[in-house]
Amino acid sequence: MKVTVHRKAHFNAAHRLCNKSWSDEKNIEVFGKCSSPNYHGHNYELVVSVTGTINQDTGMVIDLKILKDLIYEKIEKEFDHKNLNLDVSYFQDKIPTAENIVVVIWDILRKELSSHLELEVTLYETPRNFVTYTG
Amino acid sequence: MKVTVHRKAHFNAAHRLCNKSWSDEKNIEVFGKCSSPNYHGHNYELVVSVTGTINQDTGMVIDLKILKDLIYEKIEKEFDHKNLNLDVSYFQDKIPTAENIVVVIWDILRKELSSHLELEVTLYETPRNFVTYTG
Amino acid sequence: MKVTVHRKAHFNAAHRLCNKSWSDEKNIEVFGKCSSPNYHGHNYELVVSVTGTINQDTGMVIDLKILKDLIYEKIEKEFDHKNLNLDVSYFQDKIPTAENIVVVIWDILRKELSSHLELEVTLYETPRNFVTYTG
Amino acid sequence: MKVTVHRKAHFNAAHRLCNKSWSDEKNIEVFGKCSSPNYHGHNYELVVSVTGTINQDTGMVIDLKILKDLIYEKIEKEFDHKNLNLDVSYFQDKIPTAENIVVVIWDILRKELSSHLELEVTLYETPRNFVTYTG
Amino acid sequence: MKVTVHRKAHFNAAHRLCNKSWSDEKNIEVFGKCSSPNYHGHNYELVVSVTGTINQDTGMVIDLKILKDLIYEKIEKEFDHKNLNLDVSYFQDKIPTAENIVVVIWDILRKELSSHLELEVTLYETPRNFVTYTG
Amino acid sequence: MKVTVHRKAHFNAAHRLCNKSWSDEKNIEVFGKCSSPNYHGHNYELVVSVTGTINQDTGMVIDLKILKDLIYEKIEKEFDHKNLNLDVSYFQDKIPTAENIVVVIWDILRKELSSHLELEVTLYETPRNFVTYTG
Repeated sequence: MKVTVHRKAHFNAAHRLCNKSWSDEKNIEVFGKCSSPNYHGHNYELVVSVTGTINQDTGMVIDLKILKDLIYEKIEKEFDHKNLNLDVSYFQDKIPTAENIVVVIWDILRKELSSHLELEVTLYETPRNFVTYTG
Repeated sequence: MKVTVHRKAHFNAAHRLCNKSWSDEKNIEVFGKCSSPNYHGHNYELVVSVTGTINQDTGMVIDLKILKDLIYEKIEKEFDHKNLNLDVSYFQDKIPTAENIVVVIWDILRKELSSHLELEVTLYETPRNFVTYTG
Repeated sequence: MKVTVHRKAHFNAAHRLCNKSWSDEKNIEVFGKCSSPNYHGHNYELVVSVTGTINQDTGMVIDLKILKDLIYEKIEKEFDHKNLNLDVSYFQDKIPTAENIVVVIWDILRKELSSHLELEVTLYETPRNFVTYTG
Repeated sequence: MKVTVHRKAHFNAAHRLCNKSWSDEKNIEVFGKCSSPNYHGHNYELVVSVTGTINQDTGMVIDLKILKDLIYEKIEKEFDHKNLNLDVSYFQDKIPTAENIVVVIWDILRKELSSHLELEVTLYETPRNFVTYTG
Repeated sequence: MKVTVHRKAHFNAAHRLCNKSWSDEKNIEVFGKCSSPNYHGHNYELVVSVTGTINQDTGMVIDLKILKDLIYEKIEKEFDHKNLNLDVSYFQDKIPTAENIVVVIWDILRKELSSHLELEVTLYETPRNFVTYTG
Repeated sequence: MKVTVHRKAHFNAAHRLCNKSWSDEKNIEVFGKCSSPNYHGHNYELVVSVTGTINQDTGMVIDLKILKDLIYEKIEKEFDHKNLNLDVSYFQDKIPTAENIVVVIWDILRKELSSHLELEVTLYETPRNFVTYTG
């Protein structure tokens, strides 16, 4: 009897899309205004979805306070009010597209959760553009 | 050619999280303010998702008026403007966590639907905390 | 040059509508299921709107961190995960309708803000029912 | 390492539900006010979800500008500000229920996408009624 | 001590923008695709805002059940699942722009409310286009 | 008979809050993480509200296509995918707080609108923090 528990969080960050091995022209051709040199930014919305069996004593799959604190410590503190390209080490060699960010977040959280729990992460870059990763 | 039809509904209810076999201290330690003795409450939002093949005469998987009435009769009338702990028999011996509520709702609706239809239920306790059950 | 700054907050609470000087029959006649004896509840959403001139050094009307902390200390701590009828002293002799709650919240916050700032409070009981008070 | 990229779009259209081989009485019995003879309409919201592997050079599954333009050219231009029954050829012989519309949209987009990409489409007829098709 | 009570409602309708005294060319020039001959449609969202003093016995400005029923009887039954141009008499000689619709709705509701209550109506044609009228 | 027409738009931008005449310490003390040196960013949502009388020939206060194009030309093209501190001349000597941004936007749009139209602008920095300016 498996139930999925979803928790929403958010962080506000700056980024730009840029392949360092490409010329400026190529970056603008591929990424358009997302490659704007002085960065732009987003209110990223995050949905962390954890699937597991219900603990009969607590009626919970996972204590939401623990999940909330985990997201705060491992994601929000690292990403909120940061420049993803300059301040967040995961993007030293990775373009901070929504796709790459959601994989990074999944990898971070996966290590923190018991192996019997399944994990899915959805990341909204804007209300109209979002991505999902399940490992 | 299977399509999923989703219908949103809602009910407003009071509850508290409390394992009756535990001391007050243990309940507060585990459930925190969710165990507050005089109850608190939520605007629960419900998404009922039914998957099946499209009837060629009607172009529908299931008549939405029938699904809407079913949710009203079996869920909203039972749960809306109620105290889940005191007024709803399903939670006599079950802690009304979102996880347990979504399983109860799924069980109720499953009995009412033809066996060739698949069912998933998502329950929002708040816009930031929600759960999904697929049986 | 006056600008209005809006800050959203929320609290989850139980309540029931009941005029203590009336019979049960009269209460049910007037308040319907909102008078259900064992309480029901809501995810209340709050918008606190403060109007004033922009401080030229900070570019702000009011520091949002200060406003956020004020709402937390004076409103969320008092109302969140509470039974408004039983746990919140303001409603000892006042029916906790959305109208009465919004006036209580406005009165609490008004005392905490400089007199040169104007205040408006909007309270959502549900996404479809909400109230506004400006003093 | 597969990621799903979601893009939201919308179109505003009129329609009515009517099986041409049925009497007016039968249509009203089955479809109710949705069969109202002079049409009614909706703000349709569309979520197009494309799953594939991340291109290491771009950090993308699919260029969102290309996906956005594809949805505009193939869906929005065909459906927006139209009468689905009278103006859109796909519904000459198909009742424009949400179920049938989502299958038509999926079929159109499927032809335009590389075969190594998976496709899911969700269509909101209203915020409370929506459908999903994955082929 | 005046409080404003807001109630949300909705209706789904077809319409087209067309000045009958103009040529087709002029209508298309002015109204563009909104003048598309076979109609298009919207999920109209309505916010009815009533301002008055709080009744000390009930804690209410106006009974929301009465307001909800009034909106249903006078607005939703008249406008929902209708073609505004063809089925709704108010638009025999009036172009059903959002501006004209909101004034019509305000006029209908104004007659039904006590004169000591103030009225404002907001009408969403889409989430991005909306209008407000206060008389 | 005055009606207000509202149009929503959005832009994604990077910024930081920083008074250039202050020390880093003072900036961090006053602006906290909003002063983070490498910028962060937001999905800004804009509501432009124009009040005027309804033109009897068109049923409109202002042609929404014209208003939409005006917002695109004067605001979105200037602000979208930009660094407000570095790329937008208005903030050479002005801290890009939400308060200052909304006044700048209002000033730009005010010049473009006929003097018989009234203007209000609301700017959402996040769904929970927003500001309104009416001149």
